Amino acid sequence: MIKAKVFVTLKPSVLDPQGKQVMNSLHSIGYDNIEEVRVSKFIEIKLKSDDLERAEDEIHEICEKLLANPNTETYSWNLEHITGE
Amino acid sequence: MIKAKVFVTLKPSVLDPQGKQVMNSLHSIGYDNIEEVRVSKFIEIKLKSDDLERAEDEIHEICEKLLANPNTETYSWNLEHITGE
Repeated sequence: MIKAKVFVTLKPSVLDPQGKQVMNSLHSIGYDNIEEVRVSKFIEIKLKSDDLERAEDEIHEICEKLLANPNTETYSWNLEHITGE
Repeated sequence: MIKAKVFVTLKPSVLDPQGKQVMNSLHSIGYDNIEEVRVSKFIEIKLKSDDLERAEDEIHEICEKLLANPNTETYSWNLEHITGE
């Protein structure tokens, strides 16, 4: 079995209203040390096959087709073999 | 400046409807190799101070007070020094 950890993050040029709101909340309760907050998605995907090359291709496709909005987001991932959990 | 990367994930015992829906979508377009999908939050926080100990304390507090729901979620983080970006 393979586990993919996929990060889908807003492009740096894209405004992140959720992150901005978290930052404002933190400032309002006294955390003045906070400079910026960006909220992204972290998606863990378990794949049945142990074929790393297949997993690599599938995760790439899945990011393109479903997980990321190519207009506003970028993505990256890493893969690891796992034993059944 | 310090960047904190914070992961807020549902506890393994907690159902993840969003992850389930992503999995169903993937199955419906032919990705039968997918066993499980879990969707989590990944939050990047920039801190002005270069004091790692202070950052450690603040990020821990912020997770407790704002970012994570202690009933259903767990969190972890790592810190790194960055130069101004």
